[in-house]
Amino acid sequence: MEAYDLIVVGAGPAGLAAGLYAGRSRLNTLVMESMMPGGQAAVTDALENYPGVGLISGPELTQRMLEQMNEFGAELATGEVTGIDARDGEFFVVAGGEERRSRALIAAMGTRYRRLGVPGENEFAGRGVSYCATCDGPFYKEQEVAVVGGGDSALQEALFLTRFASKVYLIHRRDEFRAVPVLGERVRAHDSIECLCSHVLKSIKGESGVDSLELLNKKTDETRELAVPGVFIFIGLEPRTDLLRGVVELDEAGFVPTDQDMKTNVRGLLAAGDCRVKALRQVSTAVGDGATAAFTAYRYVEEGEW
Amino acid sequence: MEAYDLIVVGAGPAGLAAGLYAGRSRLNTLVMESMMPGGQAAVTDALENYPGVGLISGPELTQRMLEQMNEFGAELATGEVTGIDARDGEFFVVAGGEERRSRALIAAMGTRYRRLGVPGENEFAGRGVSYCATCDGPFYKEQEVAVVGGGDSALQEALFLTRFASKVYLIHRRDEFRAVPVLGERVRAHDSIECLCSHVLKSIKGESGVDSLELLNKKTDETRELAVPGVFIFIGLEPRTDLLRGVVELDEAGFVPTDQDMKTNVRGLLAAGDCRVKALRQVSTAVGDGATAAFTAYRYVEEGEW
Repeated sequence: MEAYDLIVVGAGPAGLAAGLYAGRSRLNTLVMESMMPGGQAAVTDALENYPGVGLISGPELTQRMLEQMNEFGAELATGEVTGIDARDGEFFVVAGGEERRSRALIAAMGTRYRRLGVPGENEFAGRGVSYCATCDGPFYKEQEVAVVGGGDSALQEALFLTRFASKVYLIHRRDEFRAVPVLGERVRAHDSIECLCSHVLKSIKGESGVDSLELLNKKTDETRELAVPGVFIFIGLEPRTDLLRGVVELDEAGFVPTDQDMKTNVRGLLAAGDCRVKALRQVSTAVGDGATAAFTAYRYVEEGEW
Repeated sequence: MEAYDLIVVGAGPAGLAAGLYAGRSRLNTLVMESMMPGGQAAVTDALENYPGVGLISGPELTQRMLEQMNEFGAELATGEVTGIDARDGEFFVVAGGEERRSRALIAAMGTRYRRLGVPGENEFAGRGVSYCATCDGPFYKEQEVAVVGGGDSALQEALFLTRFASKVYLIHRRDEFRAVPVLGERVRAHDSIECLCSHVLKSIKGESGVDSLELLNKKTDETRELAVPGVFIFIGLEPRTDLLRGVVELDEAGFVPTDQDMKTNVRGLLAAGDCRVKALRQVSTAVGDGATAAFTAYRYVEEGEW
């Protein structure tokens, strides 16, 4: 069984920053990722608020992080992690039928988009129902689409979709957006975006793909049919921490509580980035988490400090 | 008196990131800095571990952060802050004889280099005694210099000084460096660096400038005279939090304790970056702090949440 000083599960900005710092500290480090490296950032079309970089695409920024990490000697392994266990002060990670062990582990699995849970959502996922405008936006050139949500990502993605769609309906159950004001202003000023506030998506209808959405106007209690071939759902994130259940303490929503050094309630096990309990989930906060987690892991592995 | 939603004191990476995020959130934000923006990062010759950027000079990275912050509408004011006060739920900041007030305040004053406290140190500061290799290194072309310290910054600066000096003596009171191993390896492998481990600097001697250092070998108890015209002292940092004494809780060393949302024990007062109590002081962790502090300030100013 291959043994490492440190295994990092997840190669988004937190995991990549952890790998960079751990590699630079000469810890024998493996970063594991089931999908493309970069996490949620890698499916973000445009990032403008990572300090010192300015406007950049998510894939480009995270690709740079990966190259930088490799320069410092941390290794990336691609494959779906199917098991994480803590035994006798060591960690065991299973991926592709192979088990690897490590002295310290950083959980950096990030989040996935939350589902709405309405009829038709699962049935038409990938056939008109999408959680990624970057991935699927270009399929809707000169067509009308709908976006569900009122937070930063919903508004960002609605703005992004105007590059392709002839019109974007923004369906939001409240009157006010939760998003930062600058995004609200841009959305309201945009000619191609129509805000359907106080509206709730009740069901998604279609035959081979999405044909229409059933909407409820919460103010008038009237139901309305909106004919669109695509709907993008951005109603928040949930942590990808299923494999940590029973291994480490999780909060009600499944996020990992840590202290400021990224320590969990299990010795040697740290969490970094979006999957931990924190106020603000951004690339800028993920890299800080990753660097700090790697530093704490280094002190644990080399000096036994916890 | 000019009034702001938020005043950020200090324009290093933490303050600039806070300004960027606060500006993007449409808080009326002023960032105040007594010196050149960029903080300690701006006097760092080469940064290689800020994720996603790769090798870059400190001034270039922080200049980019400043421009990005300005794009989002946060304002920079240059001038030495001489007073900070909290009264009636507001904050009052004095600079250049002018008082400004704000509803929230982010303390991001960073740190300054700690002094060794040996005879000759203050006398020859700026005349052979330096705390900044980037600033003063070029004065020692083809001369021999000494560096005091054994942490990351001491070793980084020793390596940097080899670009100018014909020889660098690295004086460290212990046998082992505290720095990350990669730096220790580079220093030990370097032809122009001679490590004087287990040596202590007792005094700095000279006439118009530094002429020699008096060193004590801790193992043999022998004293030795080292003739060099320059000595660079890198023995750690102390927080620039003098103005916060009596305003907010500080720890014994003067750092500001905060929770994970960067809240101090005073409502509306946050701290971010190197001046707060934290494990790892890096650009990567400073920007995460700054972003989080701005987010918490936004929720406090706009929604009254604390």
